[in-house]
Amino acid sequence: MKFELLHQSKKSRARIGRIHTPHGIIDTPNFVAVGTNGTLKALDNRMVSSIGLQLMFCNTYHLLLQPGVDVIREAGGIHKFINRNLPIITDSGGFQVFSLAYGGVADEIKSKGMKKHGGSVLKISDDGVLFRSYRDGRKVLLTPETSVLAQKALGSDIIIPFDELPPYHISQGELRRSLDRTHNWEKRSLEAHLKNPQGQAMYAVIHGGVNPALRAESCSYLTKLPFDGFAVGGSMGKTKEEMVEMLQYTMPRLPEDKPNHLLGIADLESLEQCIPLGIDTFDSSYPTKAARHGTLLTKRGPLKITRGVYSNLFEPIEEGCSCLTCQEYSLAYLHHLFKAKELTAMTLASIHNLHFMVEYMNDYRDMITKDLV
Amino acid sequence: MKFELLHQSKKSRARIGRIHTPHGIIDTPNFVAVGTNGTLKALDNRMVSSIGLQLMFCNTYHLLLQPGVDVIREAGGIHKFINRNLPIITDSGGFQVFSLAYGGVADEIKSKGMKKHGGSVLKISDDGVLFRSYRDGRKVLLTPETSVLAQKALGSDIIIPFDELPPYHISQGELRRSLDRTHNWEKRSLEAHLKNPQGQAMYAVIHGGVNPALRAESCSYLTKLPFDGFAVGGSMGKTKEEMVEMLQYTMPRLPEDKPNHLLGIADLESLEQCIPLGIDTFDSSYPTKAARHGTLLTKRGPLKITRGVYSNLFEPIEEGCSCLTCQEYSLAYLHHLFKAKELTAMTLASIHNLHFMVEYMNDYRDMITKDLV
Repeated sequence: MKFELLHQSKKSRARIGRIHTPHGIIDTPNFVAVGTNGTLKALDNRMVSSIGLQLMFCNTYHLLLQPGVDVIREAGGIHKFINRNLPIITDSGGFQVFSLAYGGVADEIKSKGMKKHGGSVLKISDDGVLFRSYRDGRKVLLTPETSVLAQKALGSDIIIPFDELPPYHISQGELRRSLDRTHNWEKRSLEAHLKNPQGQAMYAVIHGGVNPALRAESCSYLTKLPFDGFAVGGSMGKTKEEMVEMLQYTMPRLPEDKPNHLLGIADLESLEQCIPLGIDTFDSSYPTKAARHGTLLTKRGPLKITRGVYSNLFEPIEEGCSCLTCQEYSLAYLHHLFKAKELTAMTLASIHNLHFMVEYMNDYRDMITKDLV
Repeated sequence: MKFELLHQSKKSRARIGRIHTPHGIIDTPNFVAVGTNGTLKALDNRMVSSIGLQLMFCNTYHLLLQPGVDVIREAGGIHKFINRNLPIITDSGGFQVFSLAYGGVADEIKSKGMKKHGGSVLKISDDGVLFRSYRDGRKVLLTPETSVLAQKALGSDIIIPFDELPPYHISQGELRRSLDRTHNWEKRSLEAHLKNPQGQAMYAVIHGGVNPALRAESCSYLTKLPFDGFAVGGSMGKTKEEMVEMLQYTMPRLPEDKPNHLLGIADLESLEQCIPLGIDTFDSSYPTKAARHGTLLTKRGPLKITRGVYSNLFEPIEEGCSCLTCQEYSLAYLHHLFKAKELTAMTLASIHNLHFMVEYMNDYRDMITKDLV
């Protein structure tokens, strides 16, 4: 992997870059769509490629359980298996396993850490996490080494080391111990990766929750190791303000000559606040999930297609939009498809929202080039 | 509408024809896919057109309730509303209204006519049927005249007169009275249609259940009226044998110079048995419904994609198939998408099955031309 820094805005830390991977280029800053099981929901990968999505995020945890890494290895890797000849990033599986243990991040924050439903996690130790597959009940051991080996079999362009996802509600002592474990796991992941790099890049995950000293320590520790890039993960606080504050503190501590990624955040408000902080790539299922629930993204703001006002508007979602949905179908027809609960509605809405994100990031890169951001 | 009879098989009643409509040609015999709400489930209409589906069946009952005919009239008709520039056939709404009253045909046969759950039908009289909308609770009166007016507003290429769908379990006296009512309703429908033909064709619906005398009477009565074609509807018996027997009796009683249609039947076994009887078009939701449930049609017979044997077969559903799904994706990937319950699975399977039907009918026409059927 090679990262070219093409332009540094004069107005902010925002920057224009280009990540070269074995499956092509990612222009940065960019949006990364989430295709958990090797597909964006309600879209097929040829369509996704034609829309211009440069990087797709797949989840190792899900692929490990279905179809299993053996099938994907046998297929010749994830790109061949899912028929995508463009860059793919996979995570380590850590996020999902710890979500099982503590509940999802949002759930966990809401429940103030009391909701320890346990999922199917059997044992967490310094070695890794033992859990039970929700698919067939078999026990699976996820460690830094097994996660990296799985991502080797997948053959994704960018891989992520195994980390612990501490809950938001945690004592400072526990957060400190979690950070040490995560650093140890990331170092072991890197060692496992470097035994057989096979053209893949590994991004470290910066942890430390909303504790500035621990974030600084995480940056200091991980940037000394030969990672190819840096992702910001872990708990980012209860509010966007807490997240932005944490990123303002963290981003200047990352090397400028390596790409970075913000894990799991790419709603439009966050993009607007975080692009000027110098983040290169953002993944989120928000645009596709919103589409499936009838929220369509436009330059005038999101619109809720099921509102009655759209029932007889025979114009596209957005004039001038070049997506298939806007070229071929009207708001009134989309409104009707959602009202009639047709699956086609989800596909057409997803095509538009994904195209919107591609164009949105194009426009952002244009503005950064002109030092307007 | 113009019907050209191009070839009559020397081996059976099977025939090759060409129906000219305001939105293009339908080669016969042909399969007609069902897009109840103005879309085939999980597919968009541009895709459907590109697959080569020549005739699409939409349901007036559903469109009447959602989005309502006013919206479609305002859009400039069903073709513009759903963005399909190829032929469309609509039914009268009668089938659905009477299904509400008696339960679906299959349900009704299984329950031996005892299951009169009533749906939301309020009153059935010689005038028509009053029912309550399942969407907003308003009362809707469907009569021969209101059904035809609705289909005028939709602007479909082929329309169907309003008829009564008598249950399978009915006394011969009741069936006799139902046939009289249906004939009266069809005549009223035709009169309403002829006041303003606007380029649409109207197919009568032959009734009479499995009673040969009544089928003969229905043919005799309806073929004397200036309908553009003839559909065979009503109860066709409990078994395929009963249906074929009824059709063997009915089809020779229809004029050879007009097109005919078999309502609601197009599984492969029925096609094989009915094409030699001289039927021109067949509609069914079977191929798309089967697709959504993971049954893929192939020349070797249907395959159930969720079977374990497909989990690591990295080849297309059918070698040589030119559909998008076979060109781009493997059995193993489709198996995975179904196992992971991804919506994309339904879309890709539907594309293949619909393409299969288009090719299947192409091949049949070729065989009829060669007098092999």
